[in-house]
Amino acid sequence: MDRTTVTQLSSESTPRRTISINSDLGESFGLHSFGNDAALLETIDVANVACGFHSGDPETMAQTVELAYQKNVKIGAHPGLPDLVGFGRREMKLTASEVESLLLYQVGALNAFLRRTGAELNHLKPHGSLYGMLARNAELMTAAAKVCELFQVPFFGLAGTEHQKVCTELGIPFIAELYVDLNYGSEGQLLIKRRPEPTNPEAAAQRVRRALEEGVVLAEDGTELRLDFDSICVHSDANNSPAVALAVRDALR
Amino acid sequence: MDRTTVTQLSSESTPRRTISINSDLGESFGLHSFGNDAALLETIDVANVACGFHSGDPETMAQTVELAYQKNVKIGAHPGLPDLVGFGRREMKLTASEVESLLLYQVGALNAFLRRTGAELNHLKPHGSLYGMLARNAELMTAAAKVCELFQVPFFGLAGTEHQKVCTELGIPFIAELYVDLNYGSEGQLLIKRRPEPTNPEAAAQRVRRALEEGVVLAEDGTELRLDFDSICVHSDANNSPAVALAVRDALR
Amino acid sequence: MDRTTVTQLSSESTPRRTISINSDLGESFGLHSFGNDAALLETIDVANVACGFHSGDPETMAQTVELAYQKNVKIGAHPGLPDLVGFGRREMKLTASEVESLLLYQVGALNAFLRRTGAELNHLKPHGSLYGMLARNAELMTAAAKVCELFQVPFFGLAGTEHQKVCTELGIPFIAELYVDLNYGSEGQLLIKRRPEPTNPEAAAQRVRRALEEGVVLAEDGTELRLDFDSICVHSDANNSPAVALAVRDALR
Amino acid sequence: MDRTTVTQLSSESTPRRTISINSDLGESFGLHSFGNDAALLETIDVANVACGFHSGDPETMAQTVELAYQKNVKIGAHPGLPDLVGFGRREMKLTASEVESLLLYQVGALNAFLRRTGAELNHLKPHGSLYGMLARNAELMTAAAKVCELFQVPFFGLAGTEHQKVCTELGIPFIAELYVDLNYGSEGQLLIKRRPEPTNPEAAAQRVRRALEEGVVLAEDGTELRLDFDSICVHSDANNSPAVALAVRDALR
Repeated sequence: MDRTTVTQLSSESTPRRTISINSDLGESFGLHSFGNDAALLETIDVANVACGFHSGDPETMAQTVELAYQKNVKIGAHPGLPDLVGFGRREMKLTASEVESLLLYQVGALNAFLRRTGAELNHLKPHGSLYGMLARNAELMTAAAKVCELFQVPFFGLAGTEHQKVCTELGIPFIAELYVDLNYGSEGQLLIKRRPEPTNPEAAAQRVRRALEEGVVLAEDGTELRLDFDSICVHSDANNSPAVALAVRDALR
Repeated sequence: MDRTTVTQLSSESTPRRTISINSDLGESFGLHSFGNDAALLETIDVANVACGFHSGDPETMAQTVELAYQKNVKIGAHPGLPDLVGFGRREMKLTASEVESLLLYQVGALNAFLRRTGAELNHLKPHGSLYGMLARNAELMTAAAKVCELFQVPFFGLAGTEHQKVCTELGIPFIAELYVDLNYGSEGQLLIKRRPEPTNPEAAAQRVRRALEEGVVLAEDGTELRLDFDSICVHSDANNSPAVALAVRDALR
Repeated sequence: MDRTTVTQLSSESTPRRTISINSDLGESFGLHSFGNDAALLETIDVANVACGFHSGDPETMAQTVELAYQKNVKIGAHPGLPDLVGFGRREMKLTASEVESLLLYQVGALNAFLRRTGAELNHLKPHGSLYGMLARNAELMTAAAKVCELFQVPFFGLAGTEHQKVCTELGIPFIAELYVDLNYGSEGQLLIKRRPEPTNPEAAAQRVRRALEEGVVLAEDGTELRLDFDSICVHSDANNSPAVALAVRDALR
Repeated sequence: MDRTTVTQLSSESTPRRTISINSDLGESFGLHSFGNDAALLETIDVANVACGFHSGDPETMAQTVELAYQKNVKIGAHPGLPDLVGFGRREMKLTASEVESLLLYQVGALNAFLRRTGAELNHLKPHGSLYGMLARNAELMTAAAKVCELFQVPFFGLAGTEHQKVCTELGIPFIAELYVDLNYGSEGQLLIKRRPEPTNPEAAAQRVRRALEEGVVLAEDGTELRLDFDSICVHSDANNSPAVALAVRDALR
């Protein structure tokens, strides 16, 4: 992967960049509560709100949007694969047309709650395996980019992957993410787990500091990855995710 | 039921009214095709497009919106209860908040496909048992009216029921429907069936003619109902629904 | 309600009855964990395992059955309405044939996991609104009784309702339940809540003691209900449910 | 692929074999009817009944089992991936444990309807992409074989693939299928389509005749495949499937 373009793209256009913290919220489902939404909303800048296919339901979406809006947290769509039992973390073979349709459906659904609240859609960030599928497949990613274009929002994704390549080609603003609670493979790919493990907040802060100062993130096997990023993702699932978010916030100061 | 207001509302404001024909479309589901959408789109004026909860799926919605737009047919949302197996025809006990959220979700989802196509949302017409629940319950109907207000669209429903009463109170434009393929009870309520039966096209035309000329519709038990209407609904399920739509079109001329 | 038959049925046939404690388990769903299954299995005698319609999924069912079997806890089916978002707590209008089919489906599904583990199906206890619907409607309850007959298992339900009446008529063994974490209406009906509230363990123990000693349970409005029972249900949802189960166990000694 | 073992296994143990015709039935879903079940039941020997994950619902299963039983057609389970919109024809990444659990769930569910009818489970044949996944993956196929062992039924699958290899290793009876309405790749793999195309009944009969006489089936690219088979599958989706089944029956005489 050529990371040079990445660095130029995001750093030069924003001379003194502000790094945001984003989190996947609204992943409760009916009576099944999930994550640490209320606590995280005290710390994060940007919420990626689940849209009902991997988790979330209309009432949860309504409440999550309301809560994020009250806390002045920006709200993006976090659409997933149609797989509640697998929480959108089981890859599915989909056509580009299917990807575009399920993104349109979910982004549109979230947009109705934003409209009622008076908030604007901030961005699109796909969830779980769909995120990984788009990182690897230009055709599927093009479908997602079209949805960003239609709603005039940037795409949150992984630098150096099809996420960024397709966005750059099609002129879709791209926000590169750094992950502090998932491991990276030696090629810079994200190693998504079915079930989250707690992250040491100090280790997360350490990763952020080194990424900020040296532009380097360690892969699972020790490879030094040069990763550019505009936003840091803290997952909501792990019990201590609010502590992780606070540690990241500290590291960013 | 006081039908006086009804008559005044719709007749006097539109001295020489134009009656439209509407049909519930997009009720295919994955590989399961359903209804006579292509044929009906040659005849009808307004399509109520299923939004995925009682039937329809993202790909079907995309195709239905595209097809209706090409045929210059107006497109409204046709959201239903979350019950695919029951096709939204099994009543569920929902709170007003749940009704508002599931309407927002589905209308928003459809709206994304309209946005891509360049079409505008024309109206909201709930499906099946949800339609009946709103006709009888002012609190639930108020939830639906709020969604109409948010999207600035009229509500399609039954004159003389809470559909019309709540819309009138809240200043939501109301389009009264006449049904030609369902029977009416003696109170003017619609007798919704789980599975459709073919309608005699001539009987449908006859009902339309009498309704136009005398303002009268016969209930199942022979009661003469004075029903005002702005639009005639032809269901898509029955095999001969295109013939029914054509017969209604003839009667309207 | 005529409680005489009830008393005779369950008391005289079992001169010194043993009261069991039962709990609804296996209500996790995919990544969404739920309830306090592991802790409760240390205390209870009988588990009602969710079967995938209101909650539960194949992997959760496999694990729950395995865990209960290891703890020597008897395992019954706990089938619900097809409504994951509503957790089976939103009443639906179903035909008797639909009720029979969805019970057969779910009981059969659970039975496969029991067969693998080597356990036997102990009983049938419907979940949430389905439980309430069967308590009030003899026709629907008859459908459930047929499923009990097919699998040769008793029905867990409310004394004095159609649960018991239909079972008695059709010769299906009936196990009457006492609830310690839900309130009763003045007619003895159960007041099912969408979301559980924590129960005071001491209040639960108190209810059990009075029910055992005087045969009386207080309804929400203070009415003294004469309720016969063979098993005490402790819900798994509330945080302190293991403490409630322990308090009930103490009271039973 | 080594076909020698295949030939020995099925031909030598049954010197004068009887070839059955099987069909996937019960794939209606709620109001969405599907396939040509009633007509096919007049011709086929074995029905593979959908179990609710890719299609089918409890009422449909009840009716399909009843109908097949009346027609003296043997009934097997036809479980699929949990994907109604994709009709189980979109591959999903599942663990072996997930495959075993979803097979147990669905086979158990069907078994309840068989128990009521008085029929016995005849076999297990997975549906769509799950069928293909098991053909290629020994670990997943082992999960399926365990379910066959538990229910003491044979597995219907493709000769020369993991279907057969794993069954042979684990001592599970294996029924090899010939497909007359799908194409084969040059490696003998089945080319599964999302939507079926009508098959020429004469071409189907021709394939059967050549397979019977010469033991040869032509792949899409003209490769001559030596395929052993015990049963011929005729899909139910295409409009003319009853004619295809009749042509196959004729060819078998």
